[in-house]
Amino acid sequence: MDIAFLLYENMTSLDLIGPYQVFTLVPGARIHLVATEVGPVRTDTGIRMYAERRLEEVPRADIVVVPGSPDPSKTMGDERVLAWLRNVDAGSKWTTSVCTGSLILGAAGLLKGKRATTHWMMTEMLKDFGATPVAERVVFDGKLVAAAGVSAGIDMALSLVAREFGDLLSQTIQLGIEYDPAPPFSTGSLRSAPPEVIEASRKLLQQVLLS
Amino acid sequence: MDIAFLLYENMTSLDLIGPYQVFTLVPGARIHLVATEVGPVRTDTGIRMYAERRLEEVPRADIVVVPGSPDPSKTMGDERVLAWLRNVDAGSKWTTSVCTGSLILGAAGLLKGKRATTHWMMTEMLKDFGATPVAERVVFDGKLVAAAGVSAGIDMALSLVAREFGDLLSQTIQLGIEYDPAPPFSTGSLRSAPPEVIEASRKLLQQVLLS
Repeated sequence: MDIAFLLYENMTSLDLIGPYQVFTLVPGARIHLVATEVGPVRTDTGIRMYAERRLEEVPRADIVVVPGSPDPSKTMGDERVLAWLRNVDAGSKWTTSVCTGSLILGAAGLLKGKRATTHWMMTEMLKDFGATPVAERVVFDGKLVAAAGVSAGIDMALSLVAREFGDLLSQTIQLGIEYDPAPPFSTGSLRSAPPEVIEASRKLLQQVLLS
Repeated sequence: MDIAFLLYENMTSLDLIGPYQVFTLVPGARIHLVATEVGPVRTDTGIRMYAERRLEEVPRADIVVVPGSPDPSKTMGDERVLAWLRNVDAGSKWTTSVCTGSLILGAAGLLKGKRATTHWMMTEMLKDFGATPVAERVVFDGKLVAAAGVSAGIDMALSLVAREFGDLLSQTIQLGIEYDPAPPFSTGSLRSAPPEVIEASRKLLQQVLLS
């Protein structure tokens, strides 16, 4: 089982590491950290993570994971990345995204007629790519699996492990990473957050990530 | 507000990135990624993350975060790391750990007489350092804040942001990272997992991480 993670400049670190933490615990999984060039890739808030392979060195994978970014536009316009995604998707068993990673899949033409999701601030953009936005945390449509914003990649990966490898392995990994979430508040989604938190969150993301 | 993250070989990636994702969204936070040497640090499942500063370059921080590792023994025996932790703890407002990061704090002598927690497989080891193990997800004792295994660092960081910066900022960040967790199962803790999952998880961690 080959699992490829796309790394790119300005990606969000937890979008990558959430699913990475889950999938690396699948026995026998071969993990590929790919980018346009081998070397350190700077994430949106600064930490650099290392890409080990160039895109062209990993032309196929059973599972592909595309993390998001507060501004994925540069990657959405990178024809080399989009061509790689189309090619690897043609042979994949599962093509997945976290947060605005789905917009990159969309730019590659992989969301046409599909149900998908993304970060709550970007939901409407999915329509630009012929997708139907769905306000759910993890959305399966055939072999396409889209997770909502940032932290949703953990739930996506556990759900996918259950489908592909069975419930027991997913449960086993969940306990291994002690994923018994207990957020101090219940403001983690548009459905549950009060208006002042939604407004503050829009401003914060703008201020910290997009300025 | 200076926030220092300790990086070291064989650390667990999500232990670091969970709190990192939360704290980097605190407006004005200055983030320091420190290790014994500047350069790439290999995590337990392979991905390399970049340390930007040597320990001695960051002698103080308001918040210190120590991630865990499936085998933290080498770092627990590294007197340079332990001396740095003692020094930075003496001036910190909050000293925090995720997973077995608390054992490293213990090895530095910082857990004596404290309530603390760690990954469920390692709980009893806390007694070796004079701490009282507590089976809770996030444990505050004075300025010491310990999180349970791996994913608990997200809850720890959000709880700490609430205490230090107020509920609204914590809620705002929670929505920003869309942390509305929906794990597919309820097997994320010793309390909720059935015996066969606990046994499988012990075996899996041994096989994938400690072999």
